Amino acid sequence: MTSDTAAADAAPRGRRGRPGNDREHVLAVAVALFIEKGYDATSVADLADRLGVTKSALYHHFSSKDELLGLALDDALTALEGVFDEPAAEAGAQLERVIRGAVGVLVEKLPEVTLLLRVRGNGPVEQAALERRRAFDHRVTEVVTRAQDEAMLRPDVDPAVATRLVFGMVNSLTEWYRPGGALDADSLADAVLAQALEGLRPRRP
Amino acid sequence: MTSDTAAADAAPRGRRGRPGNDREHVLAVAVALFIEKGYDATSVADLADRLGVTKSALYHHFSSKDELLGLALDDALTALEGVFDEPAAEAGAQLERVIRGAVGVLVEKLPEVTLLLRVRGNGPVEQAALERRRAFDHRVTEVVTRAQDEAMLRPDVDPAVATRLVFGMVNSLTEWYRPGGALDADSLADAVLAQALEGLRPRRP
Repeated sequence: MTSDTAAADAAPRGRRGRPGNDREHVLAVAVALFIEKGYDATSVADLADRLGVTKSALYHHFSSKDELLGLALDDALTALEGVFDEPAAEAGAQLERVIRGAVGVLVEKLPEVTLLLRVRGNGPVEQAALERRRAFDHRVTEVVTRAQDEAMLRPDVDPAVATRLVFGMVNSLTEWYRPGGALDADSLADAVLAQALEGLRPRRP
Repeated sequence: MTSDTAAADAAPRGRRGRPGNDREHVLAVAVALFIEKGYDATSVADLADRLGVTKSALYHHFSSKDELLGLALDDALTALEGVFDEPAAEAGAQLERVIRGAVGVLVEKLPEVTLLLRVRGNGPVEQAALERRRAFDHRVTEVVTRAQDEAMLRPDVDPAVATRLVFGMVNSLTEWYRPGGALDADSLADAVLAQALEGLRPRRP
């Protein structure tokens, strides 16, 4: 049995014999297992067991557990960084686009972002991911600051604290949002935007 | 060397020979290690190493790793549940008290709450803690619903979603708040309350 076939045996039907999909499948199962058991507590043997393949079959696809983690985190971070790809003329509109985009990424890449949010900086792969998260936060904080300059946001909030609290709301989705629930990505983004921008207290007309 | 002395050797000065404090010290070091390495990836041998004591010295204080986890989670949950101890006549005021109280608990018991928020339900101790977290969320959701009935909160938000988003903000403090920073518990609570209730967009006078 070649390692390709071994990995394909564990893959859903229709993937057999498609090495690219095998690789994606192994990565998806690895991310699910890292979330379930924690990255540090998951061994390559655990992953091989879950996939029903041998360790050497796994090493045909990936050089290390770290490579799997790095790929999953890069996937989440690249998608998040993409929310800046379409700049708006006004920072207020840009902020809405960033928040809506981030909610969309969380819904679309829920396992990868969940894993990203659990990264604590153990080892170089996690440290590099934390560095990119910090750079992302800085870019959002800049948008918040510009939106304040435009008088689109209240002047009496600290832009860095406001950014962290808004992303506290966004990131909490990984804790309670489940695909197929009552709320889709757009409704979730509406709820987050309404609460972040308008607040819970009624506004007078 | 008795086990008490062994544990005291690892404790900060001034705790030597005070068994009650030894127990607290072991628990505090265990919580820090669980946060650093993850609960599942931490062995009793790791904890004994960190404390500079033998495993049998540890077992003099605690029967199992699970007991340490259970005590830490109970500490966090009991403090959080305490935010309902002083009910307010109006639900709007009660909600402010609950949010301010929860921020205070996070600041005061940062390691224990951090650990609580990482619990995924692996094993009966974690499952019991998740059940208490859910009961807490339900009580907050009830206060949000009553505050809507009083017209203190906007009628067009879902109380359960609003509760989750507000606690997303509150819980994010465990990610970025560091003791001794620029913001104390009261300023943090002010920032969370202002952002949750008033929103980031300027209100007309």
